[in-house]
Amino acid sequence: MSAHLINRAADLMAAVRSARPLVHNITNYVVMNPTANALLALGASPVMAHAEEEVAEMAAIAGALVLNLGTLSPPWISAMFKAAESARQHRVPIVLDPVGAGATRLRTETARKLLAGFPPEILRANASEVLAVAGDGGQTRGVDSRHPVALARDAAVKLAGEFHTTVAVTGPEDFVTDGAKVARIRNGHPLMSRVTGTGCTASAIAGAFCAVEKDAFVAAVASLVAFGIAGEMAARDNPRPGTFQVRLLDALDEIQPDHVRAGARVEIAALPR
Amino acid sequence: MSAHLINRAADLMAAVRSARPLVHNITNYVVMNPTANALLALGASPVMAHAEEEVAEMAAIAGALVLNLGTLSPPWISAMFKAAESARQHRVPIVLDPVGAGATRLRTETARKLLAGFPPEILRANASEVLAVAGDGGQTRGVDSRHPVALARDAAVKLAGEFHTTVAVTGPEDFVTDGAKVARIRNGHPLMSRVTGTGCTASAIAGAFCAVEKDAFVAAVASLVAFGIAGEMAARDNPRPGTFQVRLLDALDEIQPDHVRAGARVEIAALPR
Amino acid sequence: MSAHLINRAADLMAAVRSARPLVHNITNYVVMNPTANALLALGASPVMAHAEEEVAEMAAIAGALVLNLGTLSPPWISAMFKAAESARQHRVPIVLDPVGAGATRLRTETARKLLAGFPPEILRANASEVLAVAGDGGQTRGVDSRHPVALARDAAVKLAGEFHTTVAVTGPEDFVTDGAKVARIRNGHPLMSRVTGTGCTASAIAGAFCAVEKDAFVAAVASLVAFGIAGEMAARDNPRPGTFQVRLLDALDEIQPDHVRAGARVEIAALPR
Repeated sequence: MSAHLINRAADLMAAVRSARPLVHNITNYVVMNPTANALLALGASPVMAHAEEEVAEMAAIAGALVLNLGTLSPPWISAMFKAAESARQHRVPIVLDPVGAGATRLRTETARKLLAGFPPEILRANASEVLAVAGDGGQTRGVDSRHPVALARDAAVKLAGEFHTTVAVTGPEDFVTDGAKVARIRNGHPLMSRVTGTGCTASAIAGAFCAVEKDAFVAAVASLVAFGIAGEMAARDNPRPGTFQVRLLDALDEIQPDHVRAGARVEIAALPR
Repeated sequence: MSAHLINRAADLMAAVRSARPLVHNITNYVVMNPTANALLALGASPVMAHAEEEVAEMAAIAGALVLNLGTLSPPWISAMFKAAESARQHRVPIVLDPVGAGATRLRTETARKLLAGFPPEILRANASEVLAVAGDGGQTRGVDSRHPVALARDAAVKLAGEFHTTVAVTGPEDFVTDGAKVARIRNGHPLMSRVTGTGCTASAIAGAFCAVEKDAFVAAVASLVAFGIAGEMAARDNPRPGTFQVRLLDALDEIQPDHVRAGARVEIAALPR
Repeated sequence: MSAHLINRAADLMAAVRSARPLVHNITNYVVMNPTANALLALGASPVMAHAEEEVAEMAAIAGALVLNLGTLSPPWISAMFKAAESARQHRVPIVLDPVGAGATRLRTETARKLLAGFPPEILRANASEVLAVAGDGGQTRGVDSRHPVALARDAAVKLAGEFHTTVAVTGPEDFVTDGAKVARIRNGHPLMSRVTGTGCTASAIAGAFCAVEKDAFVAAVASLVAFGIAGEMAARDNPRPGTFQVRLLDALDEIQPDHVRAGARVEIAALPR
């Protein structure tokens, strides 16, 4: 089962490069530039647009919509709902990244409302954020997780079942579930947490994969495997964080389907009913 | 004619470094940081300010005003009009970059209103954006051009004549016209399209050149030649996009008038009446 | 006196890494990404949040609050006051960076109101900004200083006395005063002025040091010494600005207490009563 999935993941990376999907991001100010550059390096086409007056149009022509709650404010929340509505109408997949859920009520509640109103294809978050969104007492320290991924597994499975979504909890080991099966991904490198916005970039890349793959569980796993391997490639020789950030973009350009086939560390299992 | 223009272009780069013009940018969130760094590396002095309450004051003390429609929203549109009015009043040249015109009505209409209300010294755009602004059916895929530069030539000449402006259409080959003459510029490198915001940077640099040269056609050509050669210098050894982005800033610092004299690939011709 | 301070500065850097303080930044769009990355590289935990609806909560859980007036607008000003009120209530230290004070009334007046309403632990600015805030005729050219640091000394001492704050004037040589004593710091490198946002980064790092040291004068001096030495490390081999920017993040990760002990160039003196 894992070998089959790894092959699909490799094929999907090629599909992203060949389709060059337009990924519409409503995302935070801190990561806009590296997110756009990561999507470009991978071979997708990024666009950032947040005005209520244009998000419906932009989401309608996109291959995926990525909603990221960092540096949130009320006008952006309204825009996210309008964009999500347009995405649903035009069958454009949605990725939700509840940055900082658990740190303030504004973020926790916005995450829950978006999840309930427009259940995304993928919810990508760290462990504290998943716990906070699930109402299981997750508290976030600013935007950093205070909880290990393992602690958020039950909350992730619950959210996946309740909202018919795929939940991807990222951390030293990633955990992905669609409520019926789970994947554990051991790709990536500790340096990824020393650069701002790698979680946000993971969500944007998940959007690019969703644009070319209808099975959101497969898209989520494939995107995290690819991004994790790119992180490993960027970490060769153990650079310091400034250099690592540059090399991560280089690696997203360098990575090929064969790197995925050779480097994927994924285990899949069915969940007991 | 070309040799003379190339010498002026080289001299203008020296003039930018010596005058260190203040370039006031009302630009999009994605590119603010690399735009500011590009202007600093080139030797100009960047400032970003967008509040309606201060843009008139800031534009009044600037050497050039650059209006960029990426990540547009209504409050920023109001600020752009206020800044443009102040710039006109204080004879500060304006560069307009209609990012994403053709992708949404908000951007297309704002571009047209700014063009009509405050015809800029330079309109810098990709081919799809120029077609969209001219009403010639240009459709933009997010912020990426779907049309070759050659297809936008007539639209560019029309806009230049109608609004007494210089239109610079950038792409693999750049096309610049003031309605009376045209320039074709073959500098640059494909890697420039693999990094977000190189078009926006081109507009900002055009602003810096406008601050030291009254002939907008000359300023536009000179800035695109200089930026294109910097792109070629940054692309030596064919780096991947992350490294290229860093080297592009290095090249804007490294480039000298002699690089322009030796490397410019420009052809000029008069337009038939 | 200086040797003692240098030892404390070195210890404080270790304290930042060990406490990993959450630094809440309400800062400008241009520098959000490099500011977050600088704090991460140094070992602190950055968060950016600006909505009036959440800043009080975020500031309450932070180790320091950094208010930066670049790309200012009225909603952000309201948020800064709310955040500052919460910070005061929860005894969270505040750093104020009046970017562009002297360039527009909006910035000059906002800086003065914040200073008067919520005197920060540290006011970090360039010479022109300090003169403008003090009402001593400082005029800023966009966001760049037009005055040497020495010219702002009296204004800095006056502001420090009037608002019981520590004023840090940065430039080729930094000047820090709490109204009773002064420090002159000769660390740093000219390349730091060739990259956008190094002043803003200095303010954010001052916030991280404030989170672990109650004496704001000591925190300000220690943070500027550490950042200056990191700048010197990044400037080894005299790189161009793009490469320098990357290495500056690397250096903030590389720098150790021993670098501070060996490299600090600080002189302290008491002010005559």
